[in-house]
Amino acid sequence: MVDLILTTFDWVPETPRGYVRDIRVRWALEAGLPYRVKSVPFRARNAEHFSHQPFGQVPWLTDGDVSIFESGAILLHLGNRSDALMPADRRNRSEATQWLFAALNSVEMASLPWSIFVFSGYTGDTLGWKRLDEFLEARLQHLEPVLAGREWLAGTFSVADILMADVLRLVDRFDGLAKNPACRDYVARATARPSFVKARADQMAHFAAAD
Amino acid sequence: MVDLILTTFDWVPETPRGYVRDIRVRWALEAGLPYRVKSVPFRARNAEHFSHQPFGQVPWLTDGDVSIFESGAILLHLGNRSDALMPADRRNRSEATQWLFAALNSVEMASLPWSIFVFSGYTGDTLGWKRLDEFLEARLQHLEPVLAGREWLAGTFSVADILMADVLRLVDRFDGLAKNPACRDYVARATARPSFVKARADQMAHFAAAD
Repeated sequence: MVDLILTTFDWVPETPRGYVRDIRVRWALEAGLPYRVKSVPFRARNAEHFSHQPFGQVPWLTDGDVSIFESGAILLHLGNRSDALMPADRRNRSEATQWLFAALNSVEMASLPWSIFVFSGYTGDTLGWKRLDEFLEARLQHLEPVLAGREWLAGTFSVADILMADVLRLVDRFDGLAKNPACRDYVARATARPSFVKARADQMAHFAAAD
Repeated sequence: MVDLILTTFDWVPETPRGYVRDIRVRWALEAGLPYRVKSVPFRARNAEHFSHQPFGQVPWLTDGDVSIFESGAILLHLGNRSDALMPADRRNRSEATQWLFAALNSVEMASLPWSIFVFSGYTGDTLGWKRLDEFLEARLQHLEPVLAGREWLAGTFSVADILMADVLRLVDRFDGLAKNPACRDYVARATARPSFVKARADQMAHFAAAD
């Protein structure tokens, strides 16, 4: 019996395809956990949707009687279910957990507003844009030597790498890693993994099927 | 023997005092875990600092031989150490964990860039600023009914409330909760707790001692 159910939108516009956050969960689940995918309407978000995801976003995961939103919380939960997603050693597990938070709260905190500005063309000569650009650049400058010195963030490939690579992948889409070759190489080796390739293809097919 | 050591800066300028992120950890530790506080230079951040906190920020926590950075990771760690910081029930623990991530990745992701713009006076009539303001407003609109309907995010007061209240407190400082009375009331009742009052007073005294 399949207990793990991933819920995502039934459809999204072309631009975000390949980058919707269910890809983080698909990627983790492809490590060998059986799951199935359900859809909720993108256009008419109903009360049941908000009961699972109070911000009206996706994804969420149900595992038996537990429903979890936030990609970070879901990945931490899955990391506790599969040895393929978290190091076995206590210290490396702690390392993976802190990097999972760092991906979201030190890097994506800077990269998401940056991406919004780049995507929307708000990168004119304003002080606000410059500040966001410097904020991201500072974070990447500190991340660069870390990723130059190790293959994965916590000894072996883990949920921390899924999050960090997915966060950096969006920056790379907008050519924001030009000055950070170790970050770019890290994204390349993470996204070359069969579990990512499968997750991405599945997401693309899922949304294409609804066109 | 005290195993828990919180490290923060030796000094910071006036403006961030009361809002430096070590306050999140002090607040949690005040739940009854014995700890002591160490300082690192604010101005000359050395290699040892970066070995504990790769982005050159604070705080970090050492617990015996484990060193943890990222306030979210630290609070999750402390939540697993104290019943006063995480609900006992399995489902409520999962609820607390997802809200801990939501505070960081759904709310602070929107509120931090907003705060940077407000603090720096970049709130002129630009499309970029409007987008950031709408981003935060949308998140607060969805959070409002949640906080109107419950005292704490996951049954009892938990590390999720420490993070969410601290995130919203900075928005409130810049009068960003005017349209969200339930969010404002939540900040008021969280920050009225003796553990927050003590944590804040300790942080103020710590930085004032270095003046």
